[in-house]
Amino acid sequence: MIFSNRVSAMQASPVRKLVPYATAAKKDGVKVYHLNIGQPDIKTPEGFMKAVREFDEDVLAYADSVGSDELIDAMIDYYKTYDMEFSKDQLLITNGGSEALLFTLMALCSAGDNVLIPEPFYTNYNGFATCVDVKINPVTTTAENGFHLPSKEEILKCIDDKTRAILISNPGNPTGAIYTLEEMQMLAEIAIEKDLWIVADEVYREFVYDGLKYTSFGNLKNVEDRVIIVDSVSKRYSACGARIGSLACKNEEFIAQVLKLCQGRLCVPTLEMVGAAELYKTPKSYLEEVNKEYCKRRDTLYEEIMKIPGVVCEKPTGAFYVVVKLPVENAEDFVIFMLKEFRHNGATTMATPAENFYGTPGLGKDEVRLAYILNCDDLKAAAQCMKLGLEAYKAAGHK
Amino acid sequence: MIFSNRVSAMQASPVRKLVPYATAAKKDGVKVYHLNIGQPDIKTPEGFMKAVREFDEDVLAYADSVGSDELIDAMIDYYKTYDMEFSKDQLLITNGGSEALLFTLMALCSAGDNVLIPEPFYTNYNGFATCVDVKINPVTTTAENGFHLPSKEEILKCIDDKTRAILISNPGNPTGAIYTLEEMQMLAEIAIEKDLWIVADEVYREFVYDGLKYTSFGNLKNVEDRVIIVDSVSKRYSACGARIGSLACKNEEFIAQVLKLCQGRLCVPTLEMVGAAELYKTPKSYLEEVNKEYCKRRDTLYEEIMKIPGVVCEKPTGAFYVVVKLPVENAEDFVIFMLKEFRHNGATTMATPAENFYGTPGLGKDEVRLAYILNCDDLKAAAQCMKLGLEAYKAAGHK
Repeated sequence: MIFSNRVSAMQASPVRKLVPYATAAKKDGVKVYHLNIGQPDIKTPEGFMKAVREFDEDVLAYADSVGSDELIDAMIDYYKTYDMEFSKDQLLITNGGSEALLFTLMALCSAGDNVLIPEPFYTNYNGFATCVDVKINPVTTTAENGFHLPSKEEILKCIDDKTRAILISNPGNPTGAIYTLEEMQMLAEIAIEKDLWIVADEVYREFVYDGLKYTSFGNLKNVEDRVIIVDSVSKRYSACGARIGSLACKNEEFIAQVLKLCQGRLCVPTLEMVGAAELYKTPKSYLEEVNKEYCKRRDTLYEEIMKIPGVVCEKPTGAFYVVVKLPVENAEDFVIFMLKEFRHNGATTMATPAENFYGTPGLGKDEVRLAYILNCDDLKAAAQCMKLGLEAYKAAGHK
Repeated sequence: MIFSNRVSAMQASPVRKLVPYATAAKKDGVKVYHLNIGQPDIKTPEGFMKAVREFDEDVLAYADSVGSDELIDAMIDYYKTYDMEFSKDQLLITNGGSEALLFTLMALCSAGDNVLIPEPFYTNYNGFATCVDVKINPVTTTAENGFHLPSKEEILKCIDDKTRAILISNPGNPTGAIYTLEEMQMLAEIAIEKDLWIVADEVYREFVYDGLKYTSFGNLKNVEDRVIIVDSVSKRYSACGARIGSLACKNEEFIAQVLKLCQGRLCVPTLEMVGAAELYKTPKSYLEEVNKEYCKRRDTLYEEIMKIPGVVCEKPTGAFYVVVKLPVENAEDFVIFMLKEFRHNGATTMATPAENFYGTPGLGKDEVRLAYILNCDDLKAAAQCMKLGLEAYKAAGHK
């Protein structure tokens, strides 16, 4: 039987092939520190389940294709706290940020078109693009300069007549980078000059550290008609399992086009929207507490990582990831070594090889992404374990 | 700003443009009998909310991309009652039947490929296909013969070298037709001869009347490796708002390919799967009761409809829809007339013009789809209102 070109071209989850190694280690009684996953351990605000439990309709009926009034209203209020004014008809609720991204690519790009994305990028961008025949034009950024953008000239070189949008996550996954206002304004200029959309994946908006001032692409007045903001409750409110995302855009025509896609899949789960509306009413103090906790974790992990000789890593200022260049030739081989062979105090550390976060072949081979979603003691132990593992890896003759 | 060819080619929901007329009528105090929508009024089994309310984790975490163990196990048991044996790795849980269909088209068809579908068909098939650059080759069926399939020769004419699958809903939406075992075996033969997949949308599996024996495409042994079964809890358990669907397939490679798409969107909502697992454990008596109720409604509506002079309508034997050919030239115009101008006892009836259920231009212009999801008294009143409306429409000089 034949399968489509697009699905054949998609990669299976790169972490998936490593999972059997982790499973085998755990079977042997080894503790595995998972720095490879983005599932926070922070408690979901209680308002979510409280509202869900109170749902009391006899029939669990379809919701409106655009999303529920209550959730949209709550999001409008949320955006106001970031000086963004959206009206009811400028928001669409989606099945996670994932569907928001997929629908956006479908709506902006015909088959064969491309989007410009700074690399390393969230691997699923690749999946969403591939399954709808969209190509990614990667703009390379490097660990050495903290994954900040190259010059305007360099970026312009990545744009051709099939480029439809700049897709950027800010704060960045996997880099943890926060773009400066100057970088954002440069992208806005490029978008205007080349008539491109800006798709701003801002699901980590609250995860900004060191007192940095965060600017949303929704705050740039000169690109209001071409900015599409992707959001999600997953990381913000530690509600990954709710699968509630959204699109916000002041361009009426964009909303009208994506609405057709929303109507096709009828609606987003009714109950999840009941819960998510409460999440967006969570007091800011919750988000501040979470921010403090992650900042502490970032500091802990970074401090320990920098004790490893030969690593290259700028201190990340956002999200809860960091991409680390290791003194090895093949980071995936090292990750497998850790899972299969190395134990310290009965434990080992699992990282994500970063190669799949790049669109340019060959890049990222010596890099890993670490998520700092464990408590500080575990993070410290995990990093120390990695340090000793690297020594053992080298001692065993690996390059 | 530019939008993609595919999204530009998509139709907005055809019912959507009629909604303002219904809204205006209601504002004027008119009661509108909605025969246009597929939202059942049947109570959702209580097990759903009971299980959801008992969910007691601190963190609402991601679920597995394939779906939850509990739900998959419950579905395996459910399929056994239809003599279908699936193992754990032959099922994938999706965001409604909608995502199951979208992912299937993505996986089977490259851009420019086509699928064969008997028309009239569920309009969203058109949306899913268009948004991934897949074409529909319609096989025309008619009200006069109860929307049964034409001959094998006729069907073979609709297949070309870019045809990848036969997509069929059985029981049929919008037709209410149940295909005979002979028809199914003919399609199976064609699939084997032409090396096509069979995508069987069987979300109305329990809605079969008159003691007809229902056969699933999953029961045909000679096409086991090429049958993909789409299911959903929406209609079966009156849980449309849960958005839980599924794919079942004995072809390992198909599951592996779609799994990549599932991994891309991470998972289906955790809580909805908790509830849906209970739905699939609902005693069969619930489904039998629901069947009886819809059978009664079908009888009531059919009897009243047949009192309208000039209608063509074979008694439907499944689902909860019927496509009726009316003695008018333009059914949409008549639907608008009903909403805007006609009232009987302060009420009017809203139907869905059937033109959009056809892939062949020009077909279905004189047809409407009626959903029998109201109680019998309302259905009777709605049909009588339509009868009088038709008389008034003709008397006003409309053709």
